[in-house]
Amino acid sequence: MQKIDVAILGATGAVGQRFIQLLDNHPWFRVAELAGKASAGKAYGEAVNWILDDNPPDDILNITVKTLESEFTSPIVFSALPKDAAIPLEFELAATGHIVCTNASANRMVDDVPLLLADINADHLQLVDVQRAKRGFTTGAVIANSNCTVMPVVMALAPLKHLGIRRLLTVSEQAISGAGYPGVASLDILDNVIPFVSKDEEEKMETEARKMLGDFAGETIQTLNAVSSATCTRVPVIDGHLVNISVELAEKLPFDEIIHLWETFAAPHDVAQLPSSPAHPVQYLPQQDRPQIRRDRNAGDGMMASIGRLRECPILGYKFAALAHNTIRGAAGSSIQNAELLAVRGYIRDFNPAAVAAGA
Amino acid sequence: MQKIDVAILGATGAVGQRFIQLLDNHPWFRVAELAGKASAGKAYGEAVNWILDDNPPDDILNITVKTLESEFTSPIVFSALPKDAAIPLEFELAATGHIVCTNASANRMVDDVPLLLADINADHLQLVDVQRAKRGFTTGAVIANSNCTVMPVVMALAPLKHLGIRRLLTVSEQAISGAGYPGVASLDILDNVIPFVSKDEEEKMETEARKMLGDFAGETIQTLNAVSSATCTRVPVIDGHLVNISVELAEKLPFDEIIHLWETFAAPHDVAQLPSSPAHPVQYLPQQDRPQIRRDRNAGDGMMASIGRLRECPILGYKFAALAHNTIRGAAGSSIQNAELLAVRGYIRDFNPAAVAAGA
Amino acid sequence: MQKIDVAILGATGAVGQRFIQLLDNHPWFRVAELAGKASAGKAYGEAVNWILDDNPPDDILNITVKTLESEFTSPIVFSALPKDAAIPLEFELAATGHIVCTNASANRMVDDVPLLLADINADHLQLVDVQRAKRGFTTGAVIANSNCTVMPVVMALAPLKHLGIRRLLTVSEQAISGAGYPGVASLDILDNVIPFVSKDEEEKMETEARKMLGDFAGETIQTLNAVSSATCTRVPVIDGHLVNISVELAEKLPFDEIIHLWETFAAPHDVAQLPSSPAHPVQYLPQQDRPQIRRDRNAGDGMMASIGRLRECPILGYKFAALAHNTIRGAAGSSIQNAELLAVRGYIRDFNPAAVAAGA
Amino acid sequence: MQKIDVAILGATGAVGQRFIQLLDNHPWFRVAELAGKASAGKAYGEAVNWILDDNPPDDILNITVKTLESEFTSPIVFSALPKDAAIPLEFELAATGHIVCTNASANRMVDDVPLLLADINADHLQLVDVQRAKRGFTTGAVIANSNCTVMPVVMALAPLKHLGIRRLLTVSEQAISGAGYPGVASLDILDNVIPFVSKDEEEKMETEARKMLGDFAGETIQTLNAVSSATCTRVPVIDGHLVNISVELAEKLPFDEIIHLWETFAAPHDVAQLPSSPAHPVQYLPQQDRPQIRRDRNAGDGMMASIGRLRECPILGYKFAALAHNTIRGAAGSSIQNAELLAVRGYIRDFNPAAVAAGA
Repeated sequence: MQKIDVAILGATGAVGQRFIQLLDNHPWFRVAELAGKASAGKAYGEAVNWILDDNPPDDILNITVKTLESEFTSPIVFSALPKDAAIPLEFELAATGHIVCTNASANRMVDDVPLLLADINADHLQLVDVQRAKRGFTTGAVIANSNCTVMPVVMALAPLKHLGIRRLLTVSEQAISGAGYPGVASLDILDNVIPFVSKDEEEKMETEARKMLGDFAGETIQTLNAVSSATCTRVPVIDGHLVNISVELAEKLPFDEIIHLWETFAAPHDVAQLPSSPAHPVQYLPQQDRPQIRRDRNAGDGMMASIGRLRECPILGYKFAALAHNTIRGAAGSSIQNAELLAVRGYIRDFNPAAVAAGA
Repeated sequence: MQKIDVAILGATGAVGQRFIQLLDNHPWFRVAELAGKASAGKAYGEAVNWILDDNPPDDILNITVKTLESEFTSPIVFSALPKDAAIPLEFELAATGHIVCTNASANRMVDDVPLLLADINADHLQLVDVQRAKRGFTTGAVIANSNCTVMPVVMALAPLKHLGIRRLLTVSEQAISGAGYPGVASLDILDNVIPFVSKDEEEKMETEARKMLGDFAGETIQTLNAVSSATCTRVPVIDGHLVNISVELAEKLPFDEIIHLWETFAAPHDVAQLPSSPAHPVQYLPQQDRPQIRRDRNAGDGMMASIGRLRECPILGYKFAALAHNTIRGAAGSSIQNAELLAVRGYIRDFNPAAVAAGA
Repeated sequence: MQKIDVAILGATGAVGQRFIQLLDNHPWFRVAELAGKASAGKAYGEAVNWILDDNPPDDILNITVKTLESEFTSPIVFSALPKDAAIPLEFELAATGHIVCTNASANRMVDDVPLLLADINADHLQLVDVQRAKRGFTTGAVIANSNCTVMPVVMALAPLKHLGIRRLLTVSEQAISGAGYPGVASLDILDNVIPFVSKDEEEKMETEARKMLGDFAGETIQTLNAVSSATCTRVPVIDGHLVNISVELAEKLPFDEIIHLWETFAAPHDVAQLPSSPAHPVQYLPQQDRPQIRRDRNAGDGMMASIGRLRECPILGYKFAALAHNTIRGAAGSSIQNAELLAVRGYIRDFNPAAVAAGA
Repeated sequence: MQKIDVAILGATGAVGQRFIQLLDNHPWFRVAELAGKASAGKAYGEAVNWILDDNPPDDILNITVKTLESEFTSPIVFSALPKDAAIPLEFELAATGHIVCTNASANRMVDDVPLLLADINADHLQLVDVQRAKRGFTTGAVIANSNCTVMPVVMALAPLKHLGIRRLLTVSEQAISGAGYPGVASLDILDNVIPFVSKDEEEKMETEARKMLGDFAGETIQTLNAVSSATCTRVPVIDGHLVNISVELAEKLPFDEIIHLWETFAAPHDVAQLPSSPAHPVQYLPQQDRPQIRRDRNAGDGMMASIGRLRECPILGYKFAALAHNTIRGAAGSSIQNAELLAVRGYIRDFNPAAVAAGA
């Protein structure tokens, strides 16, 4: 099978690097183009200050970084741009035929943009057809993945959605990598907790959860009608966002049945077969002191959410903790999984999904 | 003025050391006796593995540590014992005439034991009279201070109590020193968050808050009738517990009036004059990213609670963060302040409170 | 190929867990027996407090932990015992026919025990024949791997050994996992550096390096005749020991030739083919700020040493930094690699090394 | 006594903030002027992102920050400028009559600039007369304090200087605050050690030590004739630089006599009486695991160096660890102490040192 070329925008940043790391030896995709603002014109190996472990993959080092205004030949474009750079660019690229899988927050709440976490709301992908019809796109589209903090929340709540989610109170403990690089100054976070993440973080938590847990209703997403209260804090850990969740459900079930819902939750069949999909989207850990950020963030190669400590909340009924890897499941990993789903569902130009079925 | 002798039980442990540090050069109290289980018979300087900064005060090094079963001559006994050791001992010492100011959890919820945080519920001290009458004590009594995590919660809520506290949801981020020494293994907490503190921690949060915020009703404390839901987590910081609080009040006030209640909150006059009392029991920090554990834990020499980020909670009405030093305000510091209050209110045998008024 | 059964002594401890993790899906070895002191009689899944990431492998959970005094049927025994438990046991097991690959310090400096780091001194394995002849062992033997801190030092110096190592001054910065579990209390190490590791650590650094870099001389190891000065410190990192090294060489070479020696250094052919051997035993990192503990400890799946910052030492001639993973290359990983080497060199009873050649 | 006005250049930076904190309630000095580049024109309270504990002193909040090019009226100017800004400015200010006590590295190695650590080389202050004569200054002068890492080294070696320091090998473990703010990114240092501090750090260690430990020889400093090899590393601690030191002395003394030299070392009488001087410049800690960065950095209010672990170095004879607070003793605290010494020795215009003797 011929691999599909992909471009990465914002390739030298923290999320851009994670894209490169996760796409190394990807069975379907080949990193063909890299672009960035400050680094344009340089070889990637020169331009990047690699902050992940080890060193960048060898075959990427000599790729010359393009300007963001370049023409891209790759059918798929991954965007790890900051919000301001993403706003004008992403729809322009879609208009010129590119599938833009974006990690930027810029277009997440746009009505005809799917806010996709493939394991839990793959049906939202139908918005791509709406988007194409409305905007006159033929092969292009913009598909967003969620904010890294709302992600463990929706992963944990999706299996309970049919019980009726009424009210939702969340308090996050977020890793420093969520702020990019250089991001959080070490003098600000060592031996410290900061009860604030950024101006919009709590609002994003509240609104994006409602969209992701909503239903595709023909032309748009019918957002979840639930009251949500979010608090976001920053803690001194490298990767992994943990969220303490209290939730009120319309239908009450015993704890073991709730746990059973998590343990048996499965993605749609074609999603479950994607290269980046974990064996199980969520796991429930029975130990009294799990999930722990460092020990559970890499479950399922960083694509599985871990849940634990289900117990009674005297106010909302249920409470528990949920955790997932913020730059894999919460950013680059989910973006790549989204692109994989677009491929198997026939949304990528010049790409025959049967080729995937036939074998990699 | 002649200083009052005090004994410290559990003197070599983490909280015991904090007692010694805070009592160094205390204007009213003199550390005369030290006791411990494993360290009995040794000079304190030999027995202790000093874990606080610098070294123990010189004048304490040669005091021989007594067994816990010893007879103590000091009118005041500070208890930093583990729960199991505290249960038989504390009331025995009270029966033999000692004022026992205890940091142990053993007797906090006993009906006739005041759970005292002098700045906010000094009137609960009247329980000492109830306790003495009921148990036949003459000069002795057991007075408890609160769990270190509930403390910032009650400090923040006391100024709002008259508005009617109906429901209360808290999520804590707690320092490692709350677990004593050796306590939390470094392999468990570095680059990690543990969403669990100990078996009873969340229940203590819920029940102790109701007692501390309750009213003295002649013979007993009428506990606060509020629904409380607590979640406790451990984070990699040395000292300082931060709690994210959502609260429902019967009477709604605008944010600036709530802040005004905090800023103008004052302890009773005699409490405010105690050597260990901070200038203000609580402060409200207007910055969007405060209170921070490392930067605000030492406010008021560790005796002031810091509050910040007051904003709307879509579920309970108000939310904010509160922080205080867990081993000073939340343990030894409050115990010492309690003993000071007992002294000025005439509860210490052979001690004339007028002496305090006259000098120091 | 039929896998060889192995037993793990001290299976629930920190290094024991690392053995289990690294042996999961090992191509030649199968974990058949587990033993421990406190955990004997329980199923491993019940007995262990798993401190590594995720959870123990499923197929290990139901193995009942044996007492240390049990009879073991496995030809290979991995010892992760504390020193005192190791002293009587390891030679007894060798006497009853077991190959004992030990991570304990107890027998490292015994004359006829090879202190083996397969990539650099595989010829020391000939001591096994000496040991068997001297002690009347037939199929058994005790083989030790090095202290976790001396390991990066000998990995970095082995390629330079032929230049004549005269004097060696080392200052280590060691991870907390080197102290086992619970090991270092978090109150001791968070926001701290401790300029002391344990009573014998510096002496081990000095003497073990001389043995490992020595030459097999017929009956014994001719230790390296070099003056060594070691300082060991503990730093707040999870895994990975970094050592700052100054060295005096008899023969001076330009820096680029020293680097060339590192880059071209290769293990003997049969060592290089072992399942646990890294592609290259050492790598030289040209960046001015590498190796870094967190970013480079997992190079070569934790089996590669990383070297950097080669520059002039005004006192000893050369200085540089070396780093490797202390519980993989410096403990369990090297022990397993040693057992692999024993297998291919025909030292394991009932095991035909040709089976390995024929394919796994 | 009328306080002397002082100005702080670079007042909003990390070291500038430390100046403000330490000068709060200073008995002799009054912060009258603040200057900075980016913050000029704003009230200090608006301009500063306060990174130390608590909040800035109230009486500083409304001072308007001046541009660096302003005319200053204060006789004393403290410079916390970056090197490039310091080069043109510091001598210009001295030329216009200001005593410039600088923490910048720019002018430290200039021949006629004293590199002063008042407790150990107060006699170098005579260079001020040389500087004034040579440059035609009347009341002005530039006085530097040392690099924050070399400081614990010279504090520890000054008491041994008369024994003849021949060779010196140092490996530092440095706090993040040494890099200023934002300085070290948290993603770079959490769970990590970086074996590199900055391009010139090791060279500064080597050359500044020789100057500070040198002798005033009429017109210039005769630098110490010792071979020095320095390695600098960054560790995840907030404040405090620890240096592992090996040293060769011409005259050998038993360990207890070396320790006695440290314990009895005293600054010149007038230095010892300065407000910022610690009771003892250095202390020797007998515990086997001290000095520790977190526990000992604040000894003597951050102005005392702590030494420990004296033992034999097989290569250079003696080895030990030394530690001091990098932004107090190693920066702002020493600068202020230097200014105090200039005051009592009559170097400040319009200031009568007898006033100090008479009161305060």
